[in-house]
Amino acid sequence: MPPKPLPGFRDFYPEQLAERAYIFDTWRRVVRRYAFVEYDGPPLESLDLYTQKSGDEIVTQLYNFVDKGGRDVALRPEMTPTFARMVGARAQALRKPVRWFSLPQLFRYERTQKGRLREHFQLNVDIVGEADVLADAELLSVAIDIMRALQLTSHDVKARVSDRRLLNALLTHLGVVDSALPAVYAVLDKLERQPREISAEKLGEAGLTGAVQEAILGFATLDFQTLRATYGTSEIVAPHVARFAEYLSHGTALGIDEWIRFDLTIVRGLAYYTGIVFELFDAVGEFRAICGGGRYDNLLASLGGTDLPALGFGMGDVVLGELLRARGRMPAVGAAIDVWVAQSPESREYPAASLQAATALRAGGLAVEFALRSQRIEKQFEAAKKAGARNVIVVEPSDDGTVSYRARTASGEVALDNIEALTGWASTTTGIAT
Amino acid sequence: MPPKPLPGFRDFYPEQLAERAYIFDTWRRVVRRYAFVEYDGPPLESLDLYTQKSGDEIVTQLYNFVDKGGRDVALRPEMTPTFARMVGARAQALRKPVRWFSLPQLFRYERTQKGRLREHFQLNVDIVGEADVLADAELLSVAIDIMRALQLTSHDVKARVSDRRLLNALLTHLGVVDSALPAVYAVLDKLERQPREISAEKLGEAGLTGAVQEAILGFATLDFQTLRATYGTSEIVAPHVARFAEYLSHGTALGIDEWIRFDLTIVRGLAYYTGIVFELFDAVGEFRAICGGGRYDNLLASLGGTDLPALGFGMGDVVLGELLRARGRMPAVGAAIDVWVAQSPESREYPAASLQAATALRAGGLAVEFALRSQRIEKQFEAAKKAGARNVIVVEPSDDGTVSYRARTASGEVALDNIEALTGWASTTTGIAT
Repeated sequence: MPPKPLPGFRDFYPEQLAERAYIFDTWRRVVRRYAFVEYDGPPLESLDLYTQKSGDEIVTQLYNFVDKGGRDVALRPEMTPTFARMVGARAQALRKPVRWFSLPQLFRYERTQKGRLREHFQLNVDIVGEADVLADAELLSVAIDIMRALQLTSHDVKARVSDRRLLNALLTHLGVVDSALPAVYAVLDKLERQPREISAEKLGEAGLTGAVQEAILGFATLDFQTLRATYGTSEIVAPHVARFAEYLSHGTALGIDEWIRFDLTIVRGLAYYTGIVFELFDAVGEFRAICGGGRYDNLLASLGGTDLPALGFGMGDVVLGELLRARGRMPAVGAAIDVWVAQSPESREYPAASLQAATALRAGGLAVEFALRSQRIEKQFEAAKKAGARNVIVVEPSDDGTVSYRARTASGEVALDNIEALTGWASTTTGIAT
Repeated sequence: MPPKPLPGFRDFYPEQLAERAYIFDTWRRVVRRYAFVEYDGPPLESLDLYTQKSGDEIVTQLYNFVDKGGRDVALRPEMTPTFARMVGARAQALRKPVRWFSLPQLFRYERTQKGRLREHFQLNVDIVGEADVLADAELLSVAIDIMRALQLTSHDVKARVSDRRLLNALLTHLGVVDSALPAVYAVLDKLERQPREISAEKLGEAGLTGAVQEAILGFATLDFQTLRATYGTSEIVAPHVARFAEYLSHGTALGIDEWIRFDLTIVRGLAYYTGIVFELFDAVGEFRAICGGGRYDNLLASLGGTDLPALGFGMGDVVLGELLRARGRMPAVGAAIDVWVAQSPESREYPAASLQAATALRAGGLAVEFALRSQRIEKQFEAAKKAGARNVIVVEPSDDGTVSYRARTASGEVALDNIEALTGWASTTTGIAT
């Protein structure tokens, strides 16, 4: 038997599954506060769903094959095409704005490295049908509130935010022609990682020299106040400055202003995003991006004819898990067992009396275990301890037909003389409440 | 863009996802009461993980292909091989009995029909390391408690239970030789669905005639009391009758006796099961099996050298969902929005005051939505109604810098004069508690 999963794939033993469940539960809890509803699609889709959006070159990264019916199919590498297909099929009927989220597992055949496997789970949160910048602020607030709910602060994580339209206006104002934009974007994307001379050289090759080149090289440290002061009076730039200021003002009202860092070097997919874009990073810069997203107003139309403005983000579980562990914010796995029911095999009504007690406790919602074979009571206590049970209840039927229960809790011993008392005790004792 | 998912695959729009979540949540809630812990494995595994267990013929039903690294891989058609691999890799270290569950999505390339798609989700519950029949009773109790938690009763669902060892002993007692067993099993499996003459003919072909044939044909209606009275004194049969009686007695203590129907025609996978086997069916017999499982003591050893007794069941989401809908037990989807926050765009501090209110309410755990663009207050009320919001709060900043809140609940109107009062009200009002 192959002893391991395929390279880049994870086994989730109960310890790992508990960590995954902590992340999933937090994701769901927070996005529901924002009135998003969950959807899901198939993990296997037609190959052309992906090539239509990303071109044939994406196929080199896919788990694609021909199924037994001769169809070209692929494991989903991202959720957006499925989302676009599903929204497109019911575009008329759906209440706008559509506020949907999903937690798909995604698959890419890539070289595995730190923070990047061949599968991961990714929270997808999308809003469809709203062009107003308030939707952009609301979306970022969801991502940041998830950080908060995971006990991360604005000292741990920063949201680096840019605006594709503001950037374009700025470049137009500086005299950059459209044909030079891809070169500028490529430079901006690497501005913090590659030597300034190389960036300058690449801008020069695109015909951008002198003051324009200097200005672009300065984008890495250009904060919004300085941008506003420097370019805010330009007729081309002004409306975009105003809109971004409104975005920031909404962010303040939503309580996320401390997390936001204006950063024109956040570029993201060129053919995809049309407005405000953002990425969440750990403040130290130790990990890959935790989350990325933005406005993609043209994508739905280009994929399926649903011409609706849209915005969304994806947040993966791998980098987030690494960050939580590194910052000591991944909670320890709690004991799964509230009560261990024990009974001496020599006692009357063994094991029926303890099975009845277990059934009553389980009906009350408690997690209950007991020995599945006849064992000395000492052995049962050992098993309870090894299992991490929070309490042990010893069931003791007596000759007169009554049954008594001794509950060994962390704080001592409680004696209860009937099963109703036991159930009542179990459901009110905070030590074992679920 | 392809308008639909692949044949046999499901899109889960929010309405369908809510039904799936109801089933998943119930599964998790019940199995955790039984102190099972969740695990998961990759949906894609090495092909030989499956052929090793089921032979090469299973490949015709698989989504299998060669990945970009030249590996023969397959989408998982069942969870047990992954489970066996994972348990096998840590067999020494794991606490026994292992009590694990998982909710994998499984994939088979089959002809699609009612209750059978090309993917489904299947709750897998397994116990490893316990040979005692109490473990068998505990396992069945999990499956039945799930039915109860889904508001199904013993009038809706029956657990048909057999015992492979008891059946074998019975057949040995009747003089059936080992070589004839496969033919007998095949007849038993179809005994209720095919004409008695055909069953008789097939038994005859296997050399089983006269009283033996009659006895086997009578297995369809043989209840356990009659079996015990008829064969209980046979030296070969007696120990198996005793063990099965003990199983039933545990079932009574666990409160599941009304659900159990002894049924020797429950055969299940021949090469797989070794002891008590069971299937859950709707009592009317309208649907496919809801759940199937049993004891498979030899499988782990045959797959990977972990020689531990084991038992488990699988319960799919498709048939279960059909049954719940048919019996009117699938709950209606509740409104996802606790509070809609409204504010007149002409009022002071628009929209900051309502964003602050929304943020405070969300921090209190409530699901909150508001209009993402400037709209007349009447339009906002319409939107709240259309969204099914349980309450509307109108935020009204006044000239003196204070903000008041009017809460329109189902039971009237509440006026609150500050955000703390609003948050307190929202967190204590049962009408909008989450």
